[in-house]
Amino acid sequence: MIKKEDKLWGGRFKTRTSSIMERIGESISFDKELYKQDIRGSLAHAKNLLKIEILTTIEFEQIQKALIEIEQEIESGNFQYKLELEDIHMHIESRLTEKIGLPGKKLHTARSRNDQVAQDVRLYIKDETKEILKLIYSLLEVIIEKSKSHTEMIMPGYTHLQVAQPIRVSHYLLSYFWAVGRDLEQFLFAYSVNDLLVLGSGALSGVNYPTDRKFIQEELKLKNISENSIDAVASRDHVLNLLFAICQTLIHFSRISEEIIIYSTVEFSFISLPDSLTTGSSIMPQKKNPDIAELIRGKSARVISNLNHMLVLLKGLPLAYNRDLQEDKISLFDSVEQVKISIEGIREMIHEMKFHPDKMINSLNNGFATATDLADFLVSKKNIPFREAHEYVGKLVSACIEKKLTLPEISLQDRKEISEHFATDEYMDAISLEKSADKKNVFGGTSFERQNEQIKNAEHKLKFWKEKILEVENE
Amino acid sequence: MIKKEDKLWGGRFKTRTSSIMERIGESISFDKELYKQDIRGSLAHAKNLLKIEILTTIEFEQIQKALIEIEQEIESGNFQYKLELEDIHMHIESRLTEKIGLPGKKLHTARSRNDQVAQDVRLYIKDETKEILKLIYSLLEVIIEKSKSHTEMIMPGYTHLQVAQPIRVSHYLLSYFWAVGRDLEQFLFAYSVNDLLVLGSGALSGVNYPTDRKFIQEELKLKNISENSIDAVASRDHVLNLLFAICQTLIHFSRISEEIIIYSTVEFSFISLPDSLTTGSSIMPQKKNPDIAELIRGKSARVISNLNHMLVLLKGLPLAYNRDLQEDKISLFDSVEQVKISIEGIREMIHEMKFHPDKMINSLNNGFATATDLADFLVSKKNIPFREAHEYVGKLVSACIEKKLTLPEISLQDRKEISEHFATDEYMDAISLEKSADKKNVFGGTSFERQNEQIKNAEHKLKFWKEKILEVENE
Amino acid sequence: MIKKEDKLWGGRFKTRTSSIMERIGESISFDKELYKQDIRGSLAHAKNLLKIEILTTIEFEQIQKALIEIEQEIESGNFQYKLELEDIHMHIESRLTEKIGLPGKKLHTARSRNDQVAQDVRLYIKDETKEILKLIYSLLEVIIEKSKSHTEMIMPGYTHLQVAQPIRVSHYLLSYFWAVGRDLEQFLFAYSVNDLLVLGSGALSGVNYPTDRKFIQEELKLKNISENSIDAVASRDHVLNLLFAICQTLIHFSRISEEIIIYSTVEFSFISLPDSLTTGSSIMPQKKNPDIAELIRGKSARVISNLNHMLVLLKGLPLAYNRDLQEDKISLFDSVEQVKISIEGIREMIHEMKFHPDKMINSLNNGFATATDLADFLVSKKNIPFREAHEYVGKLVSACIEKKLTLPEISLQDRKEISEHFATDEYMDAISLEKSADKKNVFGGTSFERQNEQIKNAEHKLKFWKEKILEVENE
Amino acid sequence: MIKKEDKLWGGRFKTRTSSIMERIGESISFDKELYKQDIRGSLAHAKNLLKIEILTTIEFEQIQKALIEIEQEIESGNFQYKLELEDIHMHIESRLTEKIGLPGKKLHTARSRNDQVAQDVRLYIKDETKEILKLIYSLLEVIIEKSKSHTEMIMPGYTHLQVAQPIRVSHYLLSYFWAVGRDLEQFLFAYSVNDLLVLGSGALSGVNYPTDRKFIQEELKLKNISENSIDAVASRDHVLNLLFAICQTLIHFSRISEEIIIYSTVEFSFISLPDSLTTGSSIMPQKKNPDIAELIRGKSARVISNLNHMLVLLKGLPLAYNRDLQEDKISLFDSVEQVKISIEGIREMIHEMKFHPDKMINSLNNGFATATDLADFLVSKKNIPFREAHEYVGKLVSACIEKKLTLPEISLQDRKEISEHFATDEYMDAISLEKSADKKNVFGGTSFERQNEQIKNAEHKLKFWKEKILEVENE
Repeated sequence: MIKKEDKLWGGRFKTRTSSIMERIGESISFDKELYKQDIRGSLAHAKNLLKIEILTTIEFEQIQKALIEIEQEIESGNFQYKLELEDIHMHIESRLTEKIGLPGKKLHTARSRNDQVAQDVRLYIKDETKEILKLIYSLLEVIIEKSKSHTEMIMPGYTHLQVAQPIRVSHYLLSYFWAVGRDLEQFLFAYSVNDLLVLGSGALSGVNYPTDRKFIQEELKLKNISENSIDAVASRDHVLNLLFAICQTLIHFSRISEEIIIYSTVEFSFISLPDSLTTGSSIMPQKKNPDIAELIRGKSARVISNLNHMLVLLKGLPLAYNRDLQEDKISLFDSVEQVKISIEGIREMIHEMKFHPDKMINSLNNGFATATDLADFLVSKKNIPFREAHEYVGKLVSACIEKKLTLPEISLQDRKEISEHFATDEYMDAISLEKSADKKNVFGGTSFERQNEQIKNAEHKLKFWKEKILEVENE
Repeated sequence: MIKKEDKLWGGRFKTRTSSIMERIGESISFDKELYKQDIRGSLAHAKNLLKIEILTTIEFEQIQKALIEIEQEIESGNFQYKLELEDIHMHIESRLTEKIGLPGKKLHTARSRNDQVAQDVRLYIKDETKEILKLIYSLLEVIIEKSKSHTEMIMPGYTHLQVAQPIRVSHYLLSYFWAVGRDLEQFLFAYSVNDLLVLGSGALSGVNYPTDRKFIQEELKLKNISENSIDAVASRDHVLNLLFAICQTLIHFSRISEEIIIYSTVEFSFISLPDSLTTGSSIMPQKKNPDIAELIRGKSARVISNLNHMLVLLKGLPLAYNRDLQEDKISLFDSVEQVKISIEGIREMIHEMKFHPDKMINSLNNGFATATDLADFLVSKKNIPFREAHEYVGKLVSACIEKKLTLPEISLQDRKEISEHFATDEYMDAISLEKSADKKNVFGGTSFERQNEQIKNAEHKLKFWKEKILEVENE
Repeated sequence: MIKKEDKLWGGRFKTRTSSIMERIGESISFDKELYKQDIRGSLAHAKNLLKIEILTTIEFEQIQKALIEIEQEIESGNFQYKLELEDIHMHIESRLTEKIGLPGKKLHTARSRNDQVAQDVRLYIKDETKEILKLIYSLLEVIIEKSKSHTEMIMPGYTHLQVAQPIRVSHYLLSYFWAVGRDLEQFLFAYSVNDLLVLGSGALSGVNYPTDRKFIQEELKLKNISENSIDAVASRDHVLNLLFAICQTLIHFSRISEEIIIYSTVEFSFISLPDSLTTGSSIMPQKKNPDIAELIRGKSARVISNLNHMLVLLKGLPLAYNRDLQEDKISLFDSVEQVKISIEGIREMIHEMKFHPDKMINSLNNGFATATDLADFLVSKKNIPFREAHEYVGKLVSACIEKKLTLPEISLQDRKEISEHFATDEYMDAISLEKSADKKNVFGGTSFERQNEQIKNAEHKLKFWKEKILEVENE
Repeated sequence: MIKKEDKLWGGRFKTRTSSIMERIGESISFDKELYKQDIRGSLAHAKNLLKIEILTTIEFEQIQKALIEIEQEIESGNFQYKLELEDIHMHIESRLTEKIGLPGKKLHTARSRNDQVAQDVRLYIKDETKEILKLIYSLLEVIIEKSKSHTEMIMPGYTHLQVAQPIRVSHYLLSYFWAVGRDLEQFLFAYSVNDLLVLGSGALSGVNYPTDRKFIQEELKLKNISENSIDAVASRDHVLNLLFAICQTLIHFSRISEEIIIYSTVEFSFISLPDSLTTGSSIMPQKKNPDIAELIRGKSARVISNLNHMLVLLKGLPLAYNRDLQEDKISLFDSVEQVKISIEGIREMIHEMKFHPDKMINSLNNGFATATDLADFLVSKKNIPFREAHEYVGKLVSACIEKKLTLPEISLQDRKEISEHFATDEYMDAISLEKSADKKNVFGGTSFERQNEQIKNAEHKLKFWKEKILEVENE
């Protein structure tokens, strides 16, 4: 326990902070993650105080030196945390004053905890979004690479988890390229929303000193300056945007994870993952469980609820700052951590997954995957209205099921009974898996030709994104 | 009830759709809202079929004429809905065939329900986002207008709902200008994500016909073409983006609504709304309730949960289409409706609200709102370290509270006992509300000068957004 | 539009309700569902007014007659709804006064809209929960019936969606019996929480009349009387409880739906549903999609978000009534509708599903489902520590996979090379699917004996629940 | 890093667990909280193994001694955690084997990680729910105590946050007694749902050993035995129930917190909290912020999202166990921690809050709180229909507002002009705050008499709940 004088706001208080206040009010258990950003922000703020002559050069240098030392103390594990110092900002400030005395106390001039924390979180989001962008980039690279070696292989495309049509494996993989590409764009947007100087907003209405905000902005390499000090300390839209981008990403990941889980079943056996990416059972020696995919599917629930948490937290809060907001960091930090490890997990699984074409062909045949093509053949070559064609093929499929045969297997006789058009040589062509795929030769379709086009487009797009990420990096 | 032959996919089925299938499967009760977009999409698709010679000119013209008639039937209320026709697409198709026979059946060539619905929803989002953008614009105009006439009036700024510092009323109002401006940007982003041709993707892998997607894109005035047909039918990122933009907006609205509710209480009495925007009580004749603000605060819970609904719906769905997605429209339509009426509600309330400066000055004095300024005066003029200054002022405030006086009221003698610096002429200056506000003369701050600057910036920004909206409009 | 005098609370208002107020404030579009409960509540309230001599016998009889007529008007579709009458309560009251004049106006004596609506919703929940309980009961009956005919059939039990161990089909089905049984208990609990008289609480503090609440309680057949009038109008815990019970139920349904979807795939083919419970594709004639299961899985997202909606709506609302609460009914009505149709859907699917034992045996063998039993045999019969046994079996499974064989197929020689214990006669016994199941002879386990015991227990429990439901019914 | 042999399920794996698998799969960072329950469960399981002769007496004693030592190691901080040992169960098992060798390995016989973890979590919920029940009890005691000393004091009752009617402070406080009392009942229900033996369910289908589940049940003092082993390992309904009870509780807390925040504003000044339960500002010396109330209001968002997390996590998971479920503990542990500290926080605030009657009377007068009573006086004493009475009073209120007077202040002349009934002596009686309160003399109403009755009922109920908690405690 500390004496009341040590509390920043102890002036007016007659009794000591009670135990419950301290325990419920502390945030050091989670906000210590902000130490780097807090020190970076304080250094820029100190430079401004020097410039506007609140600090002397000597004082500034003392502060600078001490803050750098504190950063090292924290990183080396030699920093002592105390519950009663509440948060990381108080810890650093208290240690600073311990080290250099009076000048340390002056650092808080022309700054409030409100704009300080708001800035720290924005710096944190900036740093972390850069990391996420690079991780996503590495995932997109892996998807393209895997797709390039799988343009010829054919697998079932599903709707309602029922075999629908033959697709190229590259087509399947690339569908995630474009989805995750949108995630990248979403993070870039979230990045731009966040890239803002808010320091100088004080508690809510600005500061009583001639703070040079433009100068601090440049020091911290931020793109924009907040236009309204109240909004600057009250808004958490940048947090929401990052949490949303993470949700969208994890939704995509939950979908491919579900597929990895299903495609890895004994029954599907379309893909296999190496032992290094699966686990066994403590009791069942034969099990090879796709745990990473399950965990990531589960994590999608977590980040959805983190976004929900933040939205609900903000609902109905009057301006400008309310203590409720202290816990905004909990969801933020957690979602950032989850998305980073999930990108890695998905990237490793895609990189390592092996496809088993025989199993996939088998499913295609058992699932009558070219039934639609057969109907289309009737329409386009035999001039039969689509709805009628659909019915003939329906009857053929029924006959196959009854006889436990596939479309290539059912006899000429049986086919003829349903429609004489099924008795021509064109029948085998019409039900060919390869040809079915290649007939989908529209832009974005599954034909071999279109796959190569799509890979080129993807590579081109990835180059474009690389530039964007480098821009962000090199700020 | 209809005969099974009338069901689109009736071919292979031996028994009639059971009652539960029909009741649980219908979506006509909500998706009829898409009729306009469905007809627009079908017209573009028909033009493509004409171009690639699936339809003759005569067939195309029959289809075109009939679709326009159907649109009129729906709009005039003369269209008959039947539960067994499931959805709006089936209704229109069925009516089309009823009207013109065979050519009607051909319209579904080279198209699947999957890409058709996906396109309809994208057209719907496009149309509605335009409406929302214009409504937001009108709200931003009202905020600027109200701010311009309130740059001199002073009100309390709050943190923790405790009086913190004096702020200009314009400063308060403009904080919502920038927040809602970000919403506008968020809708523009959501708009761009959505602005995509997906028709031609078929069920999931493309179509077996030489559909000219570029041609349809131009017909429908869409900015981009989907790169991957699987992703095109499976993705709902555009829906998520719109739902998120709506959430962010309603979060802002819930905050100002909370303030309107609190500021309208008997105890605060800072603002009053006209009778036309409040309601009375069925039992208490004196009541004047800020129902619109309460309803909008409540609606924030609704749109948060609509976003949650969509995220949870998508979680873990394997590609490409699953029937779960049928209900994506429920949250979408509801959130769109809620945000539109809420923008109107907030706009009307801001337009009509009257501020009561006497009540606000009263609060500022009772809340010792210039205590910080007094501390800053000690720091900047008397060279006292901030933390010490903070303590002196704390003691002065305690003395005031004990004696039930405000800072302008407490006696010279009492002030002197705490610090001799409080006994100088500068004291009254230091605690002046006006001067306090004007000392916050940093960019984004609450000084009179900065208010005028901020209004200019806001007007400039609004002009910029107007251009953006016009671009979107004139596509 | 109506004249202001017609508005209940028009007294003090100088201008007419503006259009936005009317549009945002109306609830008649959804709360008309409460008409029955509103009339029932009003009748009981009128009887009380008669008893305490606010109404004369003649007035009471006029009111009674008119209310019954209004109910018939509504049910026959001859009732006219007007947006400007806002809600169902105003509609009925207004119609009543239209019919009988002054006595109609007196009905609102000793009652506020707050306690009136609160009571109506409680009556609605009571009515609907009874319906839900009966539907759940019918589902439980179907599960037992299906289980009884499937105690001998063996299927794979899964963990991580990997084949784990052989289980009885009855065991699988009954796992849902107990889960849905808990739902039934949850609804009974929700029912008891809701079963409360709140009328007589007035706007929030009670009424100025000698209302006999005990008398109204008996009239409305309610179990308890609210103890505190503020809490009575402010609480929505009963709504939350029902929404939660619905969530838990739909979570169970989403899980069995997922299984139905997976077990119906071409690849698994464990079960098939009749045509009447599946749909085809508009474009792919071979498809037989488990749409009901998909829709119900989707509906789980909807009811989860309805609960979230209600929780978020309530968060931070000061007592007693706030207009935000008007929209509590939206989530409530929707979740009630969804759970009712979902119970029907699950019941029909379970009733109609056919299992294909050959496919399931196949999976069990390909999934090495008795590997654990083999390990246990080493432990219990050969005295080998479990972890070592686990390793031997792991090696055997690896060998099988390499040679594309199953445990019954791999050669004696190969087995012997891994462990001599695999070379004994006991090997075949140890890997038998039937025997594996029967060795799980612990209470709750999958042995044939335990299945019969479990069915007996389930039947016994169902009888107990029937009594509970009848109690609730016969109140 | 550890060698692969050290991994429980290392048998079949050829390569080492990769870094990503280890990092994404670990749960030791959070599930170490379960150590007590894991050891308790293992001891009971070991006793069973002794009874069914899998363990010798000597082995059992070795295990027992070692487990107790491990518990002490953990509690004294001398236990070494390693990421590669994944979870708390592996840690304890590994340490056990380190200590006593072979017998340690035998402990996992007849048990799977699935039933083990499921049981541990149930024991955790049991322990924690007991703690929560006792905390709630202490809160209820404080509410009654505070209510007893505030039956005479009058405050405004609000609807729409507008002054509605005078209520007794005890009436206000007791409204939370009944709400929190429902929470207590909800926790008792959650407790009963959770009070179940699941050990003996194995991985999902039971175990191959004659485990005596009845015996283990008694050892662990559990009320029921799971009826179906699949359901036993797959269900998380007990977790959901606890999370829901916590949500309901925090919703109540968020409402009283909102009120504490509003009632503590400078403008309301109805209540004040001691310095020990508030905080100051680092920059504004006059601030006294109700941080605990704000934090608890914020925590309601957190526990709502924890429930959402768990629901979304479970949605669509096939039986029996999936790795997604590993993270069920994250939300559970967090919500338990939040509810415990929040109960303390609310209890301390209620215990310490001081009411300021002068301020509350002031609000009542300015808010025309007895306007309804005046209307009722016209109805009951002057035989004027309610709606007309409502209008007269509306006019009187309007006149008061125009003249800036309250109902006791407006002149006889002015009153007479509106209605001659306002000119009688009975007027002052009709608008008396005290008399208004005492006229609400219905059961549950705000009259002095009813307050005393309600306190008696509350005390009686609390005694009943005490018995219930003691029953649970003494199991």
